[in-house]
Amino acid sequence: MPPLTKAQASEIEEYDYFVIGGGSGGLASARRAASYGAKVGLAEATPKLGGTCVNVGCVPKKVMWYTADIADNLRKAAAYGFGKDGEGNRIAGDFNWTELKHKRDAYIKRLNGIYETNLVKDKVDYHSGFASFIDANTLQIDGLDGETYQVKAKNITVAVGGRPTIPSEETIEGAQYGINSDGFFDIEEQPKRVAVVGAGYIAVELAGVFNTLGTETHLIIRHDQVLRTFDPMLSEVLVPYMEKTGLNIHKSSNVKKVEKTSSGSLLVHVDSLDKPLEVDVLLWAIGRHANTEKLGLEKIGIKTDDKGDIIADDYQNTNVSNIYAVGDVAGKVLLTPVAIAAGRRLSNRLFGPEKYKNDKLSYENIPSVVFSHPTIGSVGLSEPEAEEKFGKDNLKVYKTSFKAMSFAMLDENHKQPTSYKLICTGPEEKVVGLHIIGEGSDEMLQGFGVAVKMGATKDDFDSCVAIHPTSAEELVTLR
Amino acid sequence: MPPLTKAQASEIEEYDYFVIGGGSGGLASARRAASYGAKVGLAEATPKLGGTCVNVGCVPKKVMWYTADIADNLRKAAAYGFGKDGEGNRIAGDFNWTELKHKRDAYIKRLNGIYETNLVKDKVDYHSGFASFIDANTLQIDGLDGETYQVKAKNITVAVGGRPTIPSEETIEGAQYGINSDGFFDIEEQPKRVAVVGAGYIAVELAGVFNTLGTETHLIIRHDQVLRTFDPMLSEVLVPYMEKTGLNIHKSSNVKKVEKTSSGSLLVHVDSLDKPLEVDVLLWAIGRHANTEKLGLEKIGIKTDDKGDIIADDYQNTNVSNIYAVGDVAGKVLLTPVAIAAGRRLSNRLFGPEKYKNDKLSYENIPSVVFSHPTIGSVGLSEPEAEEKFGKDNLKVYKTSFKAMSFAMLDENHKQPTSYKLICTGPEEKVVGLHIIGEGSDEMLQGFGVAVKMGATKDDFDSCVAIHPTSAEELVTLR
Repeated sequence: MPPLTKAQASEIEEYDYFVIGGGSGGLASARRAASYGAKVGLAEATPKLGGTCVNVGCVPKKVMWYTADIADNLRKAAAYGFGKDGEGNRIAGDFNWTELKHKRDAYIKRLNGIYETNLVKDKVDYHSGFASFIDANTLQIDGLDGETYQVKAKNITVAVGGRPTIPSEETIEGAQYGINSDGFFDIEEQPKRVAVVGAGYIAVELAGVFNTLGTETHLIIRHDQVLRTFDPMLSEVLVPYMEKTGLNIHKSSNVKKVEKTSSGSLLVHVDSLDKPLEVDVLLWAIGRHANTEKLGLEKIGIKTDDKGDIIADDYQNTNVSNIYAVGDVAGKVLLTPVAIAAGRRLSNRLFGPEKYKNDKLSYENIPSVVFSHPTIGSVGLSEPEAEEKFGKDNLKVYKTSFKAMSFAMLDENHKQPTSYKLICTGPEEKVVGLHIIGEGSDEMLQGFGVAVKMGATKDDFDSCVAIHPTSAEELVTLR
Repeated sequence: MPPLTKAQASEIEEYDYFVIGGGSGGLASARRAASYGAKVGLAEATPKLGGTCVNVGCVPKKVMWYTADIADNLRKAAAYGFGKDGEGNRIAGDFNWTELKHKRDAYIKRLNGIYETNLVKDKVDYHSGFASFIDANTLQIDGLDGETYQVKAKNITVAVGGRPTIPSEETIEGAQYGINSDGFFDIEEQPKRVAVVGAGYIAVELAGVFNTLGTETHLIIRHDQVLRTFDPMLSEVLVPYMEKTGLNIHKSSNVKKVEKTSSGSLLVHVDSLDKPLEVDVLLWAIGRHANTEKLGLEKIGIKTDDKGDIIADDYQNTNVSNIYAVGDVAGKVLLTPVAIAAGRRLSNRLFGPEKYKNDKLSYENIPSVVFSHPTIGSVGLSEPEAEEKFGKDNLKVYKTSFKAMSFAMLDENHKQPTSYKLICTGPEEKVVGLHIIGEGSDEMLQGFGVAVKMGATKDDFDSCVAIHPTSAEELVTLR
């Protein structure tokens, strides 16, 4: 089913609900509203539904992580008795990036199609174009087909997401030669040498993929740790392991200038290095900001903060009644499932049965995962946050470090590290933080997230019989 | 540190606590008791500490599972762009069983050593020999060094475990040509053809390893499903997938006779087949029974059931005061962590502080995992059990089936299945059963086990924000 034409759109008098942005949060909110019988429209400004997550985020990133994981497994093969003379290692190095990239694109394209089908199935009108405010009940749609028209709606949610930030050329000369995480997914041929700038999870994940797939990888970070909003243990375990696996981490470092050579390579001048780094790709992963510039928010006085994020309360209300903000555009916990949950709960509240009239997402104890090598999981407070909130004397912190059994046949030097930390408070030892790094942390976290959200104590953890042999069992046998 | 000599042993007047059996449960109980200052001895009748789990169970089995998992990954390599002309597939088939077996043995031997070190460190006297009752406070130790002596103890725990059952030659002619799961770990060369008899988790796991490593594998089961004590969904997903991956499952089948050919192969006569199966190895995995025959239990009147398992209550008490039973010998939930937890809690109760005076293991909601391909996890009641307990009308069952993203680049035919089931009861939809099959189920279950043990409801699951993209997130977004 194609998007609506101008002629079709002009026949619609007024929507109960209109969502600007066809990413995870917008789609979820629109479909949920429609499921209650509301008349719903949605506009997406790019040709593809799915937003950041499906097109240039979680999904293709995870495919690349799986690809890197296969390489890790190939490198383990010899130790487990497979092949001869390091064949596994050799094949790990014989990687066809271009072929995989095209397969990945095809996979994403199928998902785009599924999103479109779901919209139709759920009776949400799909407008293909850029929507901006004319007034608090009227939007102008600049269609991708060149047509322009207006739609009216009683309630409007802004769910336009954000995009990666790149330094201006005024700040860093030559910054424009770098790409961002969106551009990562356009790379057709595996670069031989890459520099990634940033210390957040996107920087860590993409640098990890490059390095594991055999690209000479430089990670340029301003301080001496990565993932600085997470519990410090995670970086303290991850950084040395990244370095051990050959990733070059340049600490206390800033990019000063970027030059393009005649051969097309880039010279990245870093203040901590005597010589510039010569790389094929420079990737900025220094943050993200909201896509709020051209929406006409100022026409109706929707407040944004100084970063440009829309200010919304816990119910996703903006300062203008009947205008809501969901997902990355609201700048609070930039995670797909947060946008989905917030969007669904907003629609529950607006269009659902009485029991949902105060529905909202709780932003406490949201579990999240970093697809590093090895993976990281985290829910609740970091140790510094817990100390700040409860006082150091009111905490009991349990830790363990070990080598997972899947590396049993490898020599010590090739084993991935695992470290777990449980932060408890009060005489009942309520779990207020759980931080894990090690193989399998990604799938391990969700259940513990449920338990922590329920208010689990250390004793609740210990009352559950361990599952042997797993890594996860170490979390219920901490002493 | 070597075990005690007869001379050393004769100097000991009386133990506070003596444990017969140096497996997981016995070791854990002995060490915990010693940690409270009790004078503790332990006897192990084989030359190796660690019992079934470490020597012929969980640990070497998991190493074999990991090995098979590497083969699975090698087979995925081409679809993810690695190697040329099916090299990954070829290497998966070029497996050196003998080399891996020897590395695995060396790994286990290191673990045996660690167990011995831990005993010494915790001041538990290690007696190397077979202990049997003379009276309720006196044991005879027939040392592996040929010496015999007696020890006295105030409290004695029997933790001698069990062993695999093999049909008698009277029941099935030639049954003795088969091996059991202990023998699996002695196999020096990869068999070309194998028949596994049984439908329990051991049969499923070992058949899965053989099949994934390229052995022609026949699984002979009496009915048409495996894992019949688990929720039926698990078998309904696993059996067709096993068959799809080339495992030959002979349903409604019984072995009638086994013959040995002059070439050393075996002819397994199965009632459902016209011709006997010719295999190199026949493996019986039809159950286990307790090692209680020669302990002299009858001298002091310790009661056993008709299978030979010692009858113990929830506090691990036998009918004789001051004699306890822990682990597989008590025949209740044959899992390492159950033995460990029961053993520790018994020692807490006997020798620990006042707060533990009623300590015991809760046998409800014990999570367990099957290392099949893909893995299985289960906690709480199966659907038939829940129907029996609560009535079908008082249940709400949520299900989902999907293909995990790690198979995204594979064609449909090569993707592993994933299916999850959540069984809820009452208006609050309390979760009383959680059953999962699919990649990652092994590490995924523990946290959900904690939540279910805490009494989680469907709403508690849904209140936790999903972690995207994972398989586990599907458990908190079921509709």
